[in-house]
Amino acid sequence: MENPQKFCKKFKDVSLEELRDRLAEFAKVRNWDQYHSPRNLLLALVGEVGELSEIFQWKGEVERGLPNWSNDDKEHLEEELSDVLLYLIQLADVCDLDLGQAALSKIVKNAQKYPILD
Amino acid sequence: MENPQKFCKKFKDVSLEELRDRLAEFAKVRNWDQYHSPRNLLLALVGEVGELSEIFQWKGEVERGLPNWSNDDKEHLEEELSDVLLYLIQLADVCDLDLGQAALSKIVKNAQKYPILD
Amino acid sequence: MENPQKFCKKFKDVSLEELRDRLAEFAKVRNWDQYHSPRNLLLALVGEVGELSEIFQWKGEVERGLPNWSNDDKEHLEEELSDVLLYLIQLADVCDLDLGQAALSKIVKNAQKYPILD
Amino acid sequence: MENPQKFCKKFKDVSLEELRDRLAEFAKVRNWDQYHSPRNLLLALVGEVGELSEIFQWKGEVERGLPNWSNDDKEHLEEELSDVLLYLIQLADVCDLDLGQAALSKIVKNAQKYPILD
Repeated sequence: MENPQKFCKKFKDVSLEELRDRLAEFAKVRNWDQYHSPRNLLLALVGEVGELSEIFQWKGEVERGLPNWSNDDKEHLEEELSDVLLYLIQLADVCDLDLGQAALSKIVKNAQKYPILD
Repeated sequence: MENPQKFCKKFKDVSLEELRDRLAEFAKVRNWDQYHSPRNLLLALVGEVGELSEIFQWKGEVERGLPNWSNDDKEHLEEELSDVLLYLIQLADVCDLDLGQAALSKIVKNAQKYPILD
Repeated sequence: MENPQKFCKKFKDVSLEELRDRLAEFAKVRNWDQYHSPRNLLLALVGEVGELSEIFQWKGEVERGLPNWSNDDKEHLEEELSDVLLYLIQLADVCDLDLGQAALSKIVKNAQKYPILD
Repeated sequence: MENPQKFCKKFKDVSLEELRDRLAEFAKVRNWDQYHSPRNLLLALVGEVGELSEIFQWKGEVERGLPNWSNDDKEHLEEELSDVLLYLIQLADVCDLDLGQAALSKIVKNAQKYPILD
């Protein structure tokens, strides 16, 4: 019998809280907290956004779903997207801000700002 | 009796999957999918990273926890952090990549790359 | 008789040194030097790169020469390109680095790295 | 007798026009024009801003003049500042915009926006 997961594109149901806790533990046991000031993490985030942009820089327009990209290129992209996410979560964390709640609130706010047109 | 939540800093347990689904629905009902090519979303992400940087640009070094920041400044920061996150999730989504799984994998990979020193 | 300048696309011959000196004077007379630490200027630069990206974010692929762009859009783009340039020059200046000489050297280095193929 | 240049911090007087012309020639003889669409160059610029940020990311606040930086670190910084500049000039060029004139105009505009306070 086929695994139904195969037909169902989905994120693994990973929470921001879980990632935040893993990252906090990761930094703590390596004694890296000392480097994780807000502006250090922000500049690290900008660095990763740069690496993400480099993947797309000479490609001209790219279609949704990345047709014709090699698996290696897709994996590289996954890594750079992840690096941006991980620094973003850590930046929110050292600022004592609740990124998940903030993101949900922003979606609600955007829905009010941009009502659905009939 | 005090609410114990008050003493427990935590993200609301929001999953990347939930945010991705809400954002996909948000774009679909507004007929915005047509604009959500990978490079359009990437440049929108870069734009939000710029707004995030503007918050920090004239502050000199900022301490963890943002002591002395006003509530308005903190809310503004939450919004910009959210905007970066929301475009990042949408970029991964239109690329058909599983951001949550990728992020977990990247943490494992980083743990192997940077072993804990005794 | 026609003005030959009309047919000759060219930069006004503006030197990096002139811009640097004007910017240094601009900051000095406003007592803004105190804010111009390297990382403050770097984050201001990132902010302007974000504004530059916002101009291009929903446009899909854009052709050289910007056909069909309004004059207003072109002026807006000129302003954002300028903002990036002005912060870049100031960042180099507060770091005591010679941006013009460095740029010439980088072109020479690139020419050695990427020889012309016959 | 000492060389007076040693005591005179200055940019070599390099013009934006000269850099633009050298870069246009560089691309032309390598047949790279085909890759130099506005959005490709913009993303390349973002990539270089990322590399610039990486230099500063773990340093905490950095003082003007970069005291205690090694010559290697300063050279690395010069290269990344140059890369940002070179892509910025090329982006303006393929957009048929006059970056030098635009930058001078922006300084005048800023002077009107921020008058000198007595």
